[in-house]
Amino acid sequence: MKFNEYFKNIDENYLFAEVAKRAGDYSAANPDKKVLKLGIGDVTLPLAPAVIRALHDAVDEMARKETFKGYGPYEGYDFLRESIRAYYKDMGVDIDLGEIFVSDGAKSDLGNILDIFAKDNTVLVPDPVYPVYVDTNVMAGRKVIYAGANEFNGFLPIPDYSVKADVIYICSPNNPTGAAYSKEQLKEWVAYAKKVGAVILYDAAYECFIRGDGAARSIYSVEGAKECAIEFCSFSKMAGFTGTRCGYTVIPFALEKDGLSANKLWFRRQATKFNGVPYIVQRGAAAVFTEEGRKQIAENLDYYRCNAAIIAGCMDKLGIWYTGGKNSPYIWLKCPYGMGSWEFFDYLLNSAQVVGTPGAGFGKNGEGFFRLTAFGSREVTEEAVGRIEKMLNG
Amino acid sequence: MKFNEYFKNIDENYLFAEVAKRAGDYSAANPDKKVLKLGIGDVTLPLAPAVIRALHDAVDEMARKETFKGYGPYEGYDFLRESIRAYYKDMGVDIDLGEIFVSDGAKSDLGNILDIFAKDNTVLVPDPVYPVYVDTNVMAGRKVIYAGANEFNGFLPIPDYSVKADVIYICSPNNPTGAAYSKEQLKEWVAYAKKVGAVILYDAAYECFIRGDGAARSIYSVEGAKECAIEFCSFSKMAGFTGTRCGYTVIPFALEKDGLSANKLWFRRQATKFNGVPYIVQRGAAAVFTEEGRKQIAENLDYYRCNAAIIAGCMDKLGIWYTGGKNSPYIWLKCPYGMGSWEFFDYLLNSAQVVGTPGAGFGKNGEGFFRLTAFGSREVTEEAVGRIEKMLNG
Repeated sequence: MKFNEYFKNIDENYLFAEVAKRAGDYSAANPDKKVLKLGIGDVTLPLAPAVIRALHDAVDEMARKETFKGYGPYEGYDFLRESIRAYYKDMGVDIDLGEIFVSDGAKSDLGNILDIFAKDNTVLVPDPVYPVYVDTNVMAGRKVIYAGANEFNGFLPIPDYSVKADVIYICSPNNPTGAAYSKEQLKEWVAYAKKVGAVILYDAAYECFIRGDGAARSIYSVEGAKECAIEFCSFSKMAGFTGTRCGYTVIPFALEKDGLSANKLWFRRQATKFNGVPYIVQRGAAAVFTEEGRKQIAENLDYYRCNAAIIAGCMDKLGIWYTGGKNSPYIWLKCPYGMGSWEFFDYLLNSAQVVGTPGAGFGKNGEGFFRLTAFGSREVTEEAVGRIEKMLNG
Repeated sequence: MKFNEYFKNIDENYLFAEVAKRAGDYSAANPDKKVLKLGIGDVTLPLAPAVIRALHDAVDEMARKETFKGYGPYEGYDFLRESIRAYYKDMGVDIDLGEIFVSDGAKSDLGNILDIFAKDNTVLVPDPVYPVYVDTNVMAGRKVIYAGANEFNGFLPIPDYSVKADVIYICSPNNPTGAAYSKEQLKEWVAYAKKVGAVILYDAAYECFIRGDGAARSIYSVEGAKECAIEFCSFSKMAGFTGTRCGYTVIPFALEKDGLSANKLWFRRQATKFNGVPYIVQRGAAAVFTEEGRKQIAENLDYYRCNAAIIAGCMDKLGIWYTGGKNSPYIWLKCPYGMGSWEFFDYLLNSAQVVGTPGAGFGKNGEGFFRLTAFGSREVTEEAVGRIEKMLNG
């Protein structure tokens, strides 16, 4: 037996472990100092009451023989897929029920989707980037190339026709940079993908943070995208499902090549290696789309948006360059005084007792940048911003 | 972009679709006849009250900010892993907490585990077999060879040292044959695996049906198995979790080769392509191991066991050769009068209005055999058995 040797090529990602270690060391040495954490990408508000009620009802269904649910459809229950279809319709995008696959989260599907692609595809990934895109491909022995995101393109790289890519990752609004593509910019990527015969894996996990100022909520808002793009979405950030696990993936029927259909390949993959999302969880997810659920979810998102605005306002006041903060829970700032990412991390921790995430951990282009998140409580966010202002105004 | 062409090599499995079609056609043509289904592999009893209570409690935790759970550990919460470790300890097997990975079901892990193995491994699979073992490997471009299970070896093949295998699948108690290996027989497989340097992927999803008559509940009851085997288990049949989705996989630290550790590779795989099982579901699964939960689960299993005994008793009375029925919810019978699998399917449907599963659908050695399941209600099982006796006694 031989293990998969490609695992040897994955970088060990010590980013969050190193962040936790430095913060822990500081607290141990300074037990009297209160450390504020704006580094995490996890939600903190509880599930909405409408979701809680749906979960309880579904649990009760599992308690009675007449309403008990065994194996469900691999692709998810129609009641949830219908709701997802209606959600897309509301944003002006028509999708067929058969194009929607309920998943246990965008991360799983973003990794597992690679099963339907051949090994010898060249993968184009933005830098900096959510580490999963790179690691899943390196594990499978694929060649990864990078599209440079930086201050000059607002961390929104545009296609380079001199580069040949087969599989292209786009995350918008982006993790970690918070930058979001407009429909016009996505048109360029769709045109490029069609020109070079590539597929776009479009990670829309943060779509719910977008508010109508030109940023695109779905790649399918671009004409022709159904022939070249798969879209991944999640209830994690939209409805606080990080520990409840549900998402969905849209694979258009039109995405075909050499007599193979991406939709059929994925259905076969899922039928063989997956048994669906818990019935209870699917009921909870469907409640997100009810009138009551939407209202409650909107309030939660506004809470995080307000935190983001508070952090962004602080950067504006200090004259610090940043992306995100508007259509995203992330603020990606340029470290002041030309500091490196880790240098600024230590400075912020030691001077203001605030923890963030060094941009260098997301790729070489992240060096010199720093990520703050809006997922903390209002109190922590306000206090942290006050300390940062004091520190930098000094 | 190129799709994964290996998908073209997977047989379309029309087994259950064909079963449903023939049963549907019969019902349409004979609307007055009551058709009894003993074909399904899905449970029918609702979740145990202890599990229901734990699920409700966990839902309530998700409703409050103080007890809300976001991202959990990739490998599962310790409260559940501790319970699983104790469950193994009760059967005389010591496992470390770090060797236990909570999953969303045995099927997912049995498929996804292949990520940690190189493509050029030869895979040995019993015939007949649960189709997932073959399909997941064919999808990945691996060579699959077969170990013949048949009437003469009681559908429990033993190792053939003239065959070189790298990855070996064993399912015991078996789906579809219901046959279960004894510890002595598993010793032979462990010895073979160590001799040829293979890994055993041991599917113990039906372990809970075993009652102390020599059949092994875990491959780790065999000395040395930790150096060559991974064990997959599930709450699906044990506690009716087919629609609730939870299982666990044991990957011993001792399973190492060429400086790579299976345990570390799997952790890296899961951290990159999985975000854990819902907190709510893990709480429900943990309740299975409480004193109250164990008692309730045992009653449910006894209900299915009794169904199995009723079907097996019918076969005994009719003098029909079969495996299973004792340590398994499946009865795998030799079709009477030398009939083929599908021939017997039609005969049973037309003469007794009973639906089962033709053995030929599980591999070529399944031809001439037939699977009945114990997952129906008592009433349906008894009525079906009465009809079968009447039909074959003539």
